[in-house]
Parts: sequence; structure tokens; C-alpha cells
Amino acid sequence: MYKDTNIRSIVKAISWRAIALVTTMVIVYLFTGEIETAIKAGVVETGFKLFFYWMHERMWFKVRWGRKKIEPFNLWFTGLPLSGKTTIADLVYTELEKLHIPIERIDASNIRNLVPGIGFTRADRNIHMHRIGYLIQKLQKNSVSTVVSFVSPYTESRKAIREMVQQNIVVHVKAEIETCKARDYKGVYAKAIAGELKNFTGVNDVYEEPKHAEITIDTETMSAEEAANVIVKYIKKNYVK
Amino acid sequence: MYKDTNIRSIVKAISWRAIALVTTMVIVYLFTGEIETAIKAGVVETGFKLFFYWMHERMWFKVRWGRKKIEPFNLWFTGLPLSGKTTIADLVYTELEKLHIPIERIDASNIRNLVPGIGFTRADRNIHMHRIGYLIQKLQKNSVSTVVSFVSPYTESRKAIREMVQQNIVVHVKAEIETCKARDYKGVYAKAIAGELKNFTGVNDVYEEPKHAEITIDTETMSAEEAANVIVKYIKKNYVK
Repeated sequence: MYKDTNIRSIVKAISWRAIALVTTMVIVYLFTGEIETAIKAGVVETGFKLFFYWMHERMWFKVRWGRKKIEPFNLWFTGLPLSGKTTIADLVYTELEKLHIPIERIDASNIRNLVPGIGFTRADRNIHMHRIGYLIQKLQKNSVSTVVSFVSPYTESRKAIREMVQQNIVVHVKAEIETCKARDYKGVYAKAIAGELKNFTGVNDVYEEPKHAEITIDTETMSAEEAANVIVKYIKKNYVK
Repeated sequence: MYKDTNIRSIVKAISWRAIALVTTMVIVYLFTGEIETAIKAGVVETGFKLFFYWMHERMWFKVRWGRKKIEPFNLWFTGLPLSGKTTIADLVYTELEKLHIPIERIDASNIRNLVPGIGFTRADRNIHMHRIGYLIQKLQKNSVSTVVSFVSPYTESRKAIREMVQQNIVVHVKAEIETCKARDYKGVYAKAIAGELKNFTGVNDVYEEPKHAEITIDTETMSAEEAANVIVKYIKKNYVK
């Protein structure tokens, strides 16, 4: 959040004066037909009004009326492990930051580091979603929008998030399970298939596809950049005016 | 966070016009000695400038220069169970909200409900502090100040918070252990003494008194309202300008 500095008010007063001075002189000239009177009037007026404008500006800075709270949104990326959620979400976040709206990025990996030992069972994941929801709520209450990426495989936990937050936008990052396995640079699919990882979504745990996603990204036909583009356009059109 | 609405710019233009109109008419009168000319000049000027002022205002609204980021602070209440932390912190929060700064309240009980099963051992408490630190960081990055109350009995975890956040203000809510026990409306001290609660600060776990608290509140000599007053004054003097 930002506040207007005094120097801003002073420069704004000067910039206004330039416009007003020209207007005044043109008007006085049209009235009197005398260039000299027009200039004199302009000079005297400038002296007084520069000071009054600055005072007026500082006074209005204290007035809260006519300011509208910015309504934050929550972009929620869901999809199989390695479907491309984090990559696309990072690109989207970078673009949205340029709009100078207050915005925060939350990724599964950041959060899991803070909650060591939490598992991947249905109950664990649901509790976990609740914490994320709490964090988003605290941020939204302060006008901060969020770009969040989690596998979030269960309909019930995505629904819980939708109920906790405002202006929720689910982005389903869709990729064939075979594509995700082929991208397995982390070796997580291999581990899960070998039975070393339990409750691994797509291998030994279910991914319940969202039925009401606001945006669906088919990564089979779209690059990460194209996907980010589609999402940023959607946000600009519907949420940032 | 707020943005200026168009109606605000219009009303601001009118309010400025009232000041400017009087100035112009007085100047023209002093120059010409003619009331009628002064009024005519005022009327014509008003028509043009009302429109220009509004345009000027909307243009400046897009300009970010001269806006200063509001620097958030973290008020951290520490003290024995039932020392009065939550009561005082709630009062302080209510007062600070009136200053129209972005501010959030975080209490131990909210957070513990989100992390069921977390214990009270030294290791558990330290991990827990890290999560709170993360939450405060995310809020501070978006200019949101925080009013936080936790027993936080260990020097090391309070130090960790101090390193994670900016403008940290530790408030030590000091009460004699006997006073806290006497206030035991929750029955927690009784349970701890009976051995039903382990690692209970003040009974079977240590409270390491802060040595560098910015504010110390002696609840033996001060009411909650007086304490809140002292803290709000301190914040107003040092952090909200």
C-alpha cells in the first residue's frame, strides 16, 4: 500500500498550474484583447493558486471518501504432478505484478517446507488446504490477490477453498498422465511406481478432475507462454479494471 | 488497498473550483476595478477548468511517482498463559484499525486450530514460530502490519521472528505466575499442575523473559486499557506518521 508524499503534491500543483496558466491567459486575452494584461493576470494568479492547490491536495489526501477498495481474486492452479502448474503460475504472476496490483505467489513447495511431516493422505491434504485457505483469507482481507499452485486432487478440498475465499478462479492445468510421466525430471513418478511414494496423485491416488474450472489449459496443445497469456487476458478482462 | 473512483475526481475538481473561482474573481477585480468583468471571467474560466482539472486528476491517478510504500510493523505480544496478552492485543488492534492502516490480528488460538496435533515441545514451538513468521512476511510484503499474541516462551524463537520480519516490536506482558494462576478461568493451570498438560509454560516448562522488549507492560500495576493506551501511543509516535 502506498501514500502520497508531499513532493508528489507539490509537483502535481506545478503540473496543474501549467495547464491553468495557459487557460487563464487565453481567457483574459479574449476578454481584453491585451497581451500584457493577460500575462500580468497569469503571473499574479500563479503565485496564489500554486499555494492553494498544494493545500487543497494535502487536505484531500486525508479524505477517504470516493476511494474504492480493490477487490482481490484468487487464481487457483490444479493439476497432476508435473502437469506444468508451477511454470504457468510463475509466468502469470510475473505478468500480473506489472499491473501494480497487490499480489502474492503461493506454491505447494513453499508451504510444505513450513509444515514438515505432513502427509499426503486425504485427511492430511484436506487439513492442509484449510491452512492455505486461511492464508489466502488474511491476504484478501488486505486487498492482496493470490496466485496459488497445488495438485489439490480432491473436489471437496477445492470446494472448501472456493467457500473460504472471494473471487476464486480455478485453472485446471490438464496434461495426460503419460506426458507427466515422460516429464519426470524430479523422478517422483518413478518412485511412486516403484512403491516408494504412497498416495501419489496419478499413480496410487486419484485426481478428481474439476467440473467447474473457470479456465482449462490443455498443455498438450498449448505452450506455457500461450497458457499464461490466456489467463492474464482473462484476469485483465474480468478482475482488473 | 484503495483506488480513487471517478466520482472522487469530479467532486475534487468542484471543491478546487470553489477555491480557484474566488481567487480569480478577486484578482480580476483588483486589476480592473470592475465587478462585472470579474464575474464574467470567473464564469468562463470555471467552464474550461472544471473539465481540465478532472482530466488532470485522472492522469495523475495513473502516475505512481511520489507515492511512498507504507512500511508495516509487527507488534509481538509475549507472556505467560493468562498474563493478559490476548485482551490487551485485542484492544490495541481495535484502536489501530481506526488509523486506517492495513492491519491484521493473529492470535495463538486461531493458528493452533489450523494446525491440529502440533505439540508444545521446544521443537514443535520453534517450527510453529516459523510458520507464523512466514505468514507475517507475506502480509508485510503487502504493507499489512500485524498484532500477534503468542506465549512464545523461548528467546530463540522470538529471535527467529525478529530476524524474519521488519519493524518488530516486542511487548512483554508481565504478570506474576501467582496472578496468572489466580485468573485460571480456563482451568489450564490446574490441569498442568495435575500433570494432565505437559510442557505448560510457567508450570512444567520455562518462560525465558525477554531482555530486549521494546515495551514492557506490568499488569500488576496497569489495567488492560492503560496498557493498550501506552502501546498505541508508542505506535503512533514511532510508526504511523
